Amino acid sequence: MKPGIPQGTRDFSAEVVRKRQYIFQTIRNVFELYGYEPLETPAMENLETLMGKYGEEGDKLIFRILDSGNPFSKDFVEELIKLFKQLQEYFKHSYETIEFLKENEKEFAKSENPFSNSMWNLNPDVLAKIFETFIKEDEVAYKNLLLTRSEISGKALRYDLTIPFARYVAMNHGKLSFPFKRYQMQPVWRADRPQKGRYREFYQCDADVVGSYSLINEVELANIYAEVFRRLGVAVEIKLNSRKILTALAEVCGGADKMIDITIAIDKLDKIGLDKVKEELTQRGLNEWQVKIIEDYLSISGTNTEKLTHITNLLGHTEAGKKGIEELSFVIAYCQPSTVNCQLDFTLARGLNYYTGVIYEAKALNAQMGSIGGGGRYDDLTGLFGVPNVPGVGISFGVDRIYDVMEELKLFPADVHTGTQVLFFNLGDAESKKSFELMQQLRSKGIRCELYHENAKFDKQFKYAEKKNIPYAVIIGTKELESSTCNVKNLVKAEQVTINFDELLSFKF
Amino acid sequence: MKPGIPQGTRDFSAEVVRKRQYIFQTIRNVFELYGYEPLETPAMENLETLMGKYGEEGDKLIFRILDSGNPFSKDFVEELIKLFKQLQEYFKHSYETIEFLKENEKEFAKSENPFSNSMWNLNPDVLAKIFETFIKEDEVAYKNLLLTRSEISGKALRYDLTIPFARYVAMNHGKLSFPFKRYQMQPVWRADRPQKGRYREFYQCDADVVGSYSLINEVELANIYAEVFRRLGVAVEIKLNSRKILTALAEVCGGADKMIDITIAIDKLDKIGLDKVKEELTQRGLNEWQVKIIEDYLSISGTNTEKLTHITNLLGHTEAGKKGIEELSFVIAYCQPSTVNCQLDFTLARGLNYYTGVIYEAKALNAQMGSIGGGGRYDDLTGLFGVPNVPGVGISFGVDRIYDVMEELKLFPADVHTGTQVLFFNLGDAESKKSFELMQQLRSKGIRCELYHENAKFDKQFKYAEKKNIPYAVIIGTKELESSTCNVKNLVKAEQVTINFDELLSFKF
Repeated sequence: MKPGIPQGTRDFSAEVVRKRQYIFQTIRNVFELYGYEPLETPAMENLETLMGKYGEEGDKLIFRILDSGNPFSKDFVEELIKLFKQLQEYFKHSYETIEFLKENEKEFAKSENPFSNSMWNLNPDVLAKIFETFIKEDEVAYKNLLLTRSEISGKALRYDLTIPFARYVAMNHGKLSFPFKRYQMQPVWRADRPQKGRYREFYQCDADVVGSYSLINEVELANIYAEVFRRLGVAVEIKLNSRKILTALAEVCGGADKMIDITIAIDKLDKIGLDKVKEELTQRGLNEWQVKIIEDYLSISGTNTEKLTHITNLLGHTEAGKKGIEELSFVIAYCQPSTVNCQLDFTLARGLNYYTGVIYEAKALNAQMGSIGGGGRYDDLTGLFGVPNVPGVGISFGVDRIYDVMEELKLFPADVHTGTQVLFFNLGDAESKKSFELMQQLRSKGIRCELYHENAKFDKQFKYAEKKNIPYAVIIGTKELESSTCNVKNLVKAEQVTINFDELLSFKF
Repeated sequence: MKPGIPQGTRDFSAEVVRKRQYIFQTIRNVFELYGYEPLETPAMENLETLMGKYGEEGDKLIFRILDSGNPFSKDFVEELIKLFKQLQEYFKHSYETIEFLKENEKEFAKSENPFSNSMWNLNPDVLAKIFETFIKEDEVAYKNLLLTRSEISGKALRYDLTIPFARYVAMNHGKLSFPFKRYQMQPVWRADRPQKGRYREFYQCDADVVGSYSLINEVELANIYAEVFRRLGVAVEIKLNSRKILTALAEVCGGADKMIDITIAIDKLDKIGLDKVKEELTQRGLNEWQVKIIEDYLSISGTNTEKLTHITNLLGHTEAGKKGIEELSFVIAYCQPSTVNCQLDFTLARGLNYYTGVIYEAKALNAQMGSIGGGGRYDDLTGLFGVPNVPGVGISFGVDRIYDVMEELKLFPADVHTGTQVLFFNLGDAESKKSFELMQQLRSKGIRCELYHENAKFDKQFKYAEKKNIPYAVIIGTKELESSTCNVKNLVKAEQVTINFDELLSFKF
């Protein structure tokens, strides 16, 4: 058997784990500085907690877990019955038209009536083909099959950290003190088609505060972005907009019913450019005058102050516009430009999600990669779970992308992936016993050491140190043991000193 | 909809996450001191990687993940057909004997023959009951059903960290440098019946070295146990035995074929006591003379040196015994009794697993809990994946149990669960703007701070600090703003000082 791992998943070796931990630890420290508290939820949630929360496309990407125990539940049997009845009906009506049935005439001839009980006497290959055709030709039946499948699974792997967080808040509503500020850094799973940079298992890294309308939260989250990326050495721009501004734009150019069309088109600006966006807006039924307003809107530029003046002229007379401008002005005024590089960007839309107020996107400035984080304010996250009126705001870090940016720009500190600092050579029983003794004393001072596991040739032991990137070797042979000295080799600089055992214990590795 | 989480899983709130992180970080630091390197593998493995590795009982506890895509594969259809045929046969023969069929006579009366196609016309409840009875009464059919179910799933959640590690070593055999020392701290999932202290999702925490026969590894792992528990403040005894000693015992009292019987019985000594063990040995076919030898063996006591003398008298004349005694003597001699509390315990058996040499168990001394860690040497872990001759030795920490012991003995440091250190009160716009400015300066010095999110009554802000266990409050009102001072309240000691802004920045929180 040739071992492998599932498509779209990854093993992380020591170097990668250490670099990833460096990112996680940096984010964690900043979250904690801002009073956010850790939360961990289980990998599996009840299926009903997740289903219907991510749109039809999202729901399909949820990994379901098979229940153990009784494999044929009442629900499953019920669905099976429905299925077989549909199957019979289907074949009664479409028998003549399906080509493969003709191709398999001989098989069918064996049974008098393929729709009767004797259907089970067909060759399994033929029956499987019948199922397959049935599935392809009848979308409703296909959905029922999926449903049937979902009936035998009551649990699923979490798809993001937001819904489990909402579920947790709703479940513990009475016990929590609000505003409740939590951060969560855990893997999520999606049955997406794997491709470069897209995985079926990946970490999300979220901070959210719920139970507060205060814009101080928005200010702090912008500061968290700035501080994390400052510590990581990644130059970023924090783009800001407000969903209320987009609402106002829709209103000004012809009613709120155009909001979704406008948002979808604007969201593509980065990818397809202004001309194509205008084309799409026209296709979506906006007239010349409306497209012109949106074009004016999208062309707003200058400093934040200049942008605020322009947007006030364009949308300041509407209720939503006024509110959105107020929010953005507050956040901009509160953020020190010297520490937080906030940039108003009215072209920012953040897809078709649940945001209702300020929205964020963190963009790396000197790398290919675009967005390495995003977030925004939402109105009623826990309403889905029966606890209404819990507003919140949150941000997310794209750890895989941050990792790629830091690799591209060589931003990881040189020592981040140093494991063992010192390798003690093994040159015999008495020698290694002494080495072990000294090594234990170095370890008690926090120096990461190893003793080579057996008395082997110098060459082999050097090779081990080299492969493991160990910077120092300590060599104690018969001569050294007699004189209570050791050779300390700096393997990076290819330098060597001979010192006595006492000196070794205070050596600066 | 009332939100909940799957049976046997847990949410971890901030305090628990922090305490658990404290344990993980302690273990991680010691692993790193000893040259072990981190590895992370995906939550899901291919089903074939896991199946057949944990015994029949273990295999049943593997959580399978449903494949997306075509829900009725050829294999599945084939199994369904088999199933329905079996079902028909079964009912032909047992119709008269099944009581519930009688109870549902009326339902059945509706259809002429319940085994015909019209079976699908039955009430789903009744049909589900038929399935259920069928499953209970026919074990072979039941296994087929499970098989059918497994056919629609190609992936599963990892059951432990050992098999994924073996799979990783086999997959990357050519790239790794041996001996390969890795540690891994990740959750695993088991579809076990949930009960007190047993969960369906829990962390394992393993260190293994593969590719080396050197007993220095055994010595170092004993030292790792000792150092981790010293740092955590948990007094432990590290029990040692060797599988070779158990082999020798079986040999001396009547052949290697008794090895499993003897091991099973000895493994129960702690739970059932010597008399019951002797009873069980007799039941398992051992004669009086054989049981007497085992009784002598189990009663060996004294210091490690005394035990070694006794065991040499009893088993030293056999090849396996001699080897086992040599191994244990080496480890005992190498471990400093002042730092590593190693105790030979010949009653230690560690279940029926793959161990072949030294075996360990870490036992907390002052707590109810028994074993909080275990491990041992194995011969050929990666042979399962086509790479033979990779011996290894490893240990594991039972994090959930260590957590419980530390709670019971109150061993967590007092500040381990302190999140926010300082709450700035919010007493108006100008006041909170100044507070925010000062707070940002404190944060840049590493002090974890929060500003209360809105201008609320004192009482409410105090309550928030209290609920979040925040030890300090900084209060800046109109008067303080004018005089550039603030009140710093120690909420634990109920003490207050008034200092100026500059003093605040160097205050010892």
